[in-house]
Amino acid sequence: MPDAYSLAEIAAFLGAELRGDAALRISGLNTLINARAGELAFLANEKYSSQLSASNASAVIMASKHLASDQGADNTQYQGTVLLLDNPYLGYARISQWFDRAPPAVAGIHPSAVIADSVLLGADVSIGANVVVEADAVIGAGSFLGAGAYIGAGSQLGDNARISANVSIYHDVVLGQGVTIHSGSVIGADGFGFAPDGNGQWLKIYQIGGVEIGDHVEIGACTTIDRGALGDTRIGNGVIIDNHVQIAHNVVIGNNCALAAYSGLAGSATMGNNCILAGDACVVGHVSICDNVQITARGLVTKSISEPGSYSSGIPLMKTREWRKNAVRMSQLDAMARRLKNVELNK
Amino acid sequence: MPDAYSLAEIAAFLGAELRGDAALRISGLNTLINARAGELAFLANEKYSSQLSASNASAVIMASKHLASDQGADNTQYQGTVLLLDNPYLGYARISQWFDRAPPAVAGIHPSAVIADSVLLGADVSIGANVVVEADAVIGAGSFLGAGAYIGAGSQLGDNARISANVSIYHDVVLGQGVTIHSGSVIGADGFGFAPDGNGQWLKIYQIGGVEIGDHVEIGACTTIDRGALGDTRIGNGVIIDNHVQIAHNVVIGNNCALAAYSGLAGSATMGNNCILAGDACVVGHVSICDNVQITARGLVTKSISEPGSYSSGIPLMKTREWRKNAVRMSQLDAMARRLKNVELNK
Amino acid sequence: MPDAYSLAEIAAFLGAELRGDAALRISGLNTLINARAGELAFLANEKYSSQLSASNASAVIMASKHLASDQGADNTQYQGTVLLLDNPYLGYARISQWFDRAPPAVAGIHPSAVIADSVLLGADVSIGANVVVEADAVIGAGSFLGAGAYIGAGSQLGDNARISANVSIYHDVVLGQGVTIHSGSVIGADGFGFAPDGNGQWLKIYQIGGVEIGDHVEIGACTTIDRGALGDTRIGNGVIIDNHVQIAHNVVIGNNCALAAYSGLAGSATMGNNCILAGDACVVGHVSICDNVQITARGLVTKSISEPGSYSSGIPLMKTREWRKNAVRMSQLDAMARRLKNVELNK
Repeated sequence: MPDAYSLAEIAAFLGAELRGDAALRISGLNTLINARAGELAFLANEKYSSQLSASNASAVIMASKHLASDQGADNTQYQGTVLLLDNPYLGYARISQWFDRAPPAVAGIHPSAVIADSVLLGADVSIGANVVVEADAVIGAGSFLGAGAYIGAGSQLGDNARISANVSIYHDVVLGQGVTIHSGSVIGADGFGFAPDGNGQWLKIYQIGGVEIGDHVEIGACTTIDRGALGDTRIGNGVIIDNHVQIAHNVVIGNNCALAAYSGLAGSATMGNNCILAGDACVVGHVSICDNVQITARGLVTKSISEPGSYSSGIPLMKTREWRKNAVRMSQLDAMARRLKNVELNK
Repeated sequence: MPDAYSLAEIAAFLGAELRGDAALRISGLNTLINARAGELAFLANEKYSSQLSASNASAVIMASKHLASDQGADNTQYQGTVLLLDNPYLGYARISQWFDRAPPAVAGIHPSAVIADSVLLGADVSIGANVVVEADAVIGAGSFLGAGAYIGAGSQLGDNARISANVSIYHDVVLGQGVTIHSGSVIGADGFGFAPDGNGQWLKIYQIGGVEIGDHVEIGACTTIDRGALGDTRIGNGVIIDNHVQIAHNVVIGNNCALAAYSGLAGSATMGNNCILAGDACVVGHVSICDNVQITARGLVTKSISEPGSYSSGIPLMKTREWRKNAVRMSQLDAMARRLKNVELNK
Repeated sequence: MPDAYSLAEIAAFLGAELRGDAALRISGLNTLINARAGELAFLANEKYSSQLSASNASAVIMASKHLASDQGADNTQYQGTVLLLDNPYLGYARISQWFDRAPPAVAGIHPSAVIADSVLLGADVSIGANVVVEADAVIGAGSFLGAGAYIGAGSQLGDNARISANVSIYHDVVLGQGVTIHSGSVIGADGFGFAPDGNGQWLKIYQIGGVEIGDHVEIGACTTIDRGALGDTRIGNGVIIDNHVQIAHNVVIGNNCALAAYSGLAGSATMGNNCILAGDACVVGHVSICDNVQITARGLVTKSISEPGSYSSGIPLMKTREWRKNAVRMSQLDAMARRLKNVELNK
């Protein structure tokens, strides 16, 4: 369990203006509605301001502009203890690490780990039970490898990697500094490359490229990033990747992109900096997306995008009974358009 | 291989009316069309009744109303050995466990397992090779942990858990009684929570909540259930979850829901009791779905649903040649509707 | 790192006509644009012919018809060293294995592997650290099992299987010759079979079938193939399967099919030979697809297909602003069609 901190410590770390008892001990972080005494909450979105007056939080991170938004019976300015910040959500994010319940990594190498002699281990690594690290791999200082993780031959992890239990990293994968990978993810498996052999069968194309991942990339659970067919699959710095994401061979992703669950890019697709793929947004092979593009949930990108902005596809939900009638019409659209044209011409 | 049972035993267990030889030995369970002599089949759907007369099954579970539906040449009532039940499909489900080929769990702890001293182990647990259980975890009586499974610090498994090989469970995850989790699934990885830092980068929000899963939940392979950002992600009792499902941080799912493959709920979405997400049905963040809602395959839920019933989106399949013509019209729909309106006004 | 080979050796293996220095040593394979001196490139698609003149490749696999397509300033026939083949892409595929960087499997059984006494091991197997093989399994000659792989009781792997780290194979799974499975994949987990118990709860149907996979099947990472409910789930010979694919219980897939990432087939669906499911193409339960069908990206197959050819569904991407206007109309399509009909009748 996390320790408790004084509000003064928290305010100093956040650079927040503290109004209230600086000595108050804070033992947890929570939402306005669920916070108990001793916990710190935050108000980041005006629409939750009505929860202020009923909250049991001992202190609230908020913007000064929201001080007057308390919806209590007296309708006066919020009287509770507050930490004032221009960006309360960012303040919450910054302080969240202080209350993390993840157990600290145990320094050292578990005796059941299997580490090849040629592996280079940085200082202060934490290597869990049944971890396997193959020949010539490099594990940066301060890295954590969870139980059952596998690191292939010659792969390089920068400092402070956090590789969770049962992650699989193939050979010749290079991770930058501070990369996190959650359980079940697979980095560097073969790309899906096969050539028709002319007799109706598929001939495997050996995938001889690698994977190169930048600094401070976070990768969720059960996500796959395939090795390149020729040359590397490349992920920039500061990219955040959710669960069940698929990044195919020779994809190139710029810096600070966000890829939500089930999003994916097919082979050789490229994406610029600061792009967002919402859930289940998929990009077909060989297209390129410029910087600052957002694809909304379930968007399907079949052509290159050269203009920043938000793009969508996907169908609104209907009652199934109505959907059946409308869906039939989708295969009649072209005919409908022609009939409409005809009516217009003959009216 | 399963043992053989007499029809009398089976009938007694199912509460079925037996017509035929009570001493007949049944050594397997199969479909009408594939059953061999010595096997028991079932007729649950009228449309398969034509398979009755040609079936080699030694006995058939069926409803009495189907007795006359045999489509054999003589068109008389089915003359084979039957077990009569009002709900033959449920009868099949109930008896299926008798013929399960899964090897029985071996009691005891494999010497290669790594179990922290502070772990509480219930009676009659079966812990496989290379399993790792971290400090302060609790493993309920009769639980099975498959090879290479990982249980994080402080997590609690109720009695009779069945955790397959290479499952990863993070810290502070609580499972109820009789929970099954298949291989490759990951419970309690970090939710996808990051705040824009104002400089174009993402700042990690530590995920300090946990996961709470009710009784008799079954979870398929390669499925992910993330831990809460603040407070827990919660799954009710009796929920069944298929492969490749994504349940994001702070999702709340009621009792007895069914989630098919690739279905998912984004952060803080809530779903009531007895709901069904068909394959690839996805729910965006923060929406809520009431009890007794069904979303058909590939439905995309972007708004809250407050009325029970079946909902759909998704497009009917067309030949690609025709689809190309119709798909173009989808981006002209609004213009078409306006033109139609105009024609109507001017006709 | 791969060795170097003479062009003469490569030409002989490929059956290519060599024009240039037969003694030239080739140390790598690359794209035209990225190749360095000493590397071999290929020209398989006319549209890349403009890259010929600037390429640093020491030799290029190409078709004789492309010899004249060099877009260099002098516009004469390409003067570099070439290997002439009718199908340069197939030539590239065939030679790719020579330059594979995957470390060779280490013969023998790692001392940490846990192999039941009754397991039958073929000659020259390579079994990695922490592998677990249960009773009565059969591992074919020349097979490789990566670290942490799990093979359930009674499962049979044909010769030359390549099972990567952390793959999970349940009991009673049968693989043909030369099957490759990448990390995180799960073969033989329970199908998603439950019967409504009449009281609003789900009763598990034990999945007593197995999985049967043909020869030379390649399966990507984080893919799931469930065991049959009754009888086996079956995959034919030469099928190639990408990452995150879902193959449900009792699916039957013919020979030489290709299934791209996120594609899937629900329970008891069948697919013939030489079919292609592009990315995220999904097939609902119990439908059947004939030979030689292609489903394009995100196609949703809800009815059986009996005619070979290409089929699609899915919506073109639009700017979100325009999409909002058009998407609203999708739920008005049936009404629009009726109004159009009315206008036509009354014009």
